[in-house]
Parts: sequence; C-alpha cells; structure tokens
Amino acid sequence: MGSPAGADRVTAGVLIIGDEILSGRTQDTNLRDIALYLGVHGVDLAEARTVPDVLEEIVAALDALRSRYDYVITTGGIGPTHDDITADAVAAAFGVELYEHPDILAMMQARWGSELNAARRRMARVPVGGELVKNPVQGPPGFTIGNVFVLAGVPMIMRGMLEDVGWRLRSGAVVISRTVRVEGSGEGAIAAPLEAVARNHPQMSLGSYPFFGDGGYGSNLVLRGRDPAEVEATVAELIGALKAAGVETLREVEAPPGA
Amino acid sequence: MGSPAGADRVTAGVLIIGDEILSGRTQDTNLRDIALYLGVHGVDLAEARTVPDVLEEIVAALDALRSRYDYVITTGGIGPTHDDITADAVAAAFGVELYEHPDILAMMQARWGSELNAARRRMARVPVGGELVKNPVQGPPGFTIGNVFVLAGVPMIMRGMLEDVGWRLRSGAVVISRTVRVEGSGEGAIAAPLEAVARNHPQMSLGSYPFFGDGGYGSNLVLRGRDPAEVEATVAELIGALKAAGVETLREVEAPPGA
Repeated sequence: MGSPAGADRVTAGVLIIGDEILSGRTQDTNLRDIALYLGVHGVDLAEARTVPDVLEEIVAALDALRSRYDYVITTGGIGPTHDDITADAVAAAFGVELYEHPDILAMMQARWGSELNAARRRMARVPVGGELVKNPVQGPPGFTIGNVFVLAGVPMIMRGMLEDVGWRLRSGAVVISRTVRVEGSGEGAIAAPLEAVARNHPQMSLGSYPFFGDGGYGSNLVLRGRDPAEVEATVAELIGALKAAGVETLREVEAPPGA
Repeated sequence: MGSPAGADRVTAGVLIIGDEILSGRTQDTNLRDIALYLGVHGVDLAEARTVPDVLEEIVAALDALRSRYDYVITTGGIGPTHDDITADAVAAAFGVELYEHPDILAMMQARWGSELNAARRRMARVPVGGELVKNPVQGPPGFTIGNVFVLAGVPMIMRGMLEDVGWRLRSGAVVISRTVRVEGSGEGAIAAPLEAVARNHPQMSLGSYPFFGDGGYGSNLVLRGRDPAEVEATVAELIGALKAAGVETLREVEAPPGA
C-alpha cells in the first residue's frame, strides 16, 4: 500500500551507516525512532538503506535518497576514528570542502584543553554551507546541509539530536492511525473484506499484521489516512464488512504511537 | 571499512518489505538475525534496504540488489492479504508468471478443506522456475528463484525458513571476529593507534564502538578478518599500540556471535 496518499505528502529517506549493523553486532533501533518522530511531524518515511563504512557506498546511497525525497536523515559514522567518514561522504556528495567549525572547536578546547588531538578534531569538521544540529546529550553536534541531516549513531545521542530537526521540517498533514484487532480469525478469513474496503478508499493505507502465540491468534488491521472523517468512516465500514463476513471477535484498540 | 577483504568474498543484500517497518509500528529484528546467520555461513551482508508495500518500489530495489550481490534475501509481504505483493514483485522482476504450486495447494487443502478461499490460495503462488523454501514453523513455505530467497516477515517464521537457506549458499571464508575492550578512555584517545594498526592490515576490518552509562565509559574495538593468523597478530599489535599510547585498561572480551 505504501503511505496514505495526499497532495501535501512530505517524504524522507533514512541512511543507516555502519559495519556494525550489517555484521549483526548491533541491533538498529534508530530507524523506528526516526520513523515515529517523523510521523508526529507529518513526514512519511518512504525508504531506508543500510550501508557499510565505505565512502563510495555512502555517497551513492545519499545521492539516491536526497534526489528522491524531501529530506534525508543519516545515522552513524561521525565519531573520531578512522572508520567515521560520514562527514567526508556528505561533503563529497555535495561537492564542497570540510572545515573545522569554530563553535565546535571552541567547545572541544574547553572540554579537552591540551588533550584535543587530531582524532578529536575530526569531529569538528562540517561541510561548507552546513549548519549545526544541537547535541543535548554528549559530545559534538551533528549538522545539516541541503536537505540532509547528519546525526550520531548512538541511539541516546541520535534521539537528542532529532529534537533539533523537527522544527526545520516542512510538515505534511499528519497521518492518523487506527487499529482494529481481530481475534480467533486468521488473515485468510479477513483478506477479502479487507481488500474490498481498501479498494473503496484509495487515499487510505490498510495493512494486516497477524499475531499468534500463547495468547491466541488473530490479526491487527491498521488503517492510516490523513482525513479524520475518512479514517472514521473507513473504520466503521471495515468493522461492518468483517461482521458481514462472519468475523465477529473484533474490537478497536489503541494503536502504538505513530503506527 | 566495510567487510574484511578477501578474494573469496561472498556477498548478500537484504530487502525488508513492509509499511509497518517504515511507519515505526514494528521494530525490525530480521536484519540482525539474517546478518548473524549469513556470518556463520561465510557470507557478507553488504547492504540492506527497507521499502513499502508498493510493487514498483519492491521491483526496483530487488533488481538493484540482485544484480550487485551474490544473494538477496527478502522478508515480508507473503501473506494472504491485498498488501502482500512480494511474490508478484519477484515474478515481475524475473519476467515470469506466478502459478499455484501443487505441493502448497495440497498442504492448504489438507489444512483448510472447504475454507480454502481465494485469499489463502494467494499464498500458494510461486514464480515459474522457483523452488520452495521449507517453513518448519507455521503456514506455507517461502521460495527461491535465481539468487533471491523470499522469506516471511514474522521473525519466528523467518528464522525457521532461514534454516533451509544456508545449505544452498556458496560459502566464503568465515569472518573471525575479536573484540578488545578499552575502559576509561574515549575514542579520541584511541583513534590514532587504531588507525595506524588498521593501515598496517588492509585485509582486516577494524571498528570502534563506544559505550557509556552507569558502568563507566570506553570503547569496544572489533577486529574482523578471514585469516586466523592475521587476526591474532592484529589483536596483539593493537594491544601493543594502545599500551604505547598510554591506554592501559584494556582486555580482550568474548564477542557476540557474528560480531
């Protein structure tokens, strides 16, 4: 289905940078945090890519995403070690140089004094034309240039930096989400009425997410749209269609935020 | 750094299909499970993409990944509802038709009898030329065609299906991973010796993953390579270089599997 349609749709891509995600060493949680944050701001996450710490790979993915979506958010690769090359890749993609930002240098000099070595100074580098993204948690800030936001990979820091991103985004109409929970019926029993309702409402996005386990089985039907009245009408229509198909045990439940 | 180099490198891409991941409704865990599984089989996960339930998006990402990597593993979109279109997308990418696989139909007829409706039959569809991937958990199997493996999105089922994938993969040399844990020194203090050692061993992949919290701060340095002797030599050289740089509190620790 993809995101609910709408003329004022604003889109974003996420670029996750880091060998540790692709090796399985680290479980990424940033994608979900960003998706929920963007949802609250009325921005649709349209695609995500995960690439290794390889300059050409980062540049290629960044160019693909930034040309296609309104915004791109990157995570990872902005620390002081040799494998932290996100700033280099962003500068290369935009065809600009990196320079040591005086505000970051001043912050680091205050923090490190004579221990401010070359590695730490790497974290002061920002592409010409970029602006800083505040880091309220620990360490140097992120930055933004063009439609790209460059954030840390450490989840706690990434979440802190996100708070300085939202106000810069052009907001679309926020997506409203409702969930109808069906218990004791599998997806095979609900697919036909679900599809019929989906066809009647091409502006809505309807998805089915089965569950099963010790607590029984069934499916959460998620209805997403931008027009409050249509969302309510679709929920009512779906419940009616399911009952007509003999699916009785269903109820509307609170959806997780941003769902 | 990307994956450790090696002439016999075997690569894979992962394609995660589903609106629920991009909306933030669901936290993906399949990527990490697949990465660890591939690591054990000597296959490098080189890239991952997450796309919505939109046919053209799935086809485009699938074509990009399957032309570039030895293998592609997809998750999600193989259920009975209207938004389950992965089989359609794979067939479109390979330019073949879908047909109802007799083994799956027989399995479903035994399970559902007269309740085998059109929606459930959707799950019996396999591209012409495809082979089945066993599902030891619940429901119909996945399938494979060309260098693409099409698995379920539900993690429990995905993991079960993976067990029928490994034996089909050409194995590269397995990556050996070691972790040196530095405590009480930040990345800024270890970046220079780490980079020097990395330069001496271009076949190895060296990464730094900082930690901090109530238990103190420091960094896990992960060394990955395919030649056991070089891995050991690099660990020893790194420990020596860190000690020479005044970083004393370090120890080798057990790495998580596949790290």
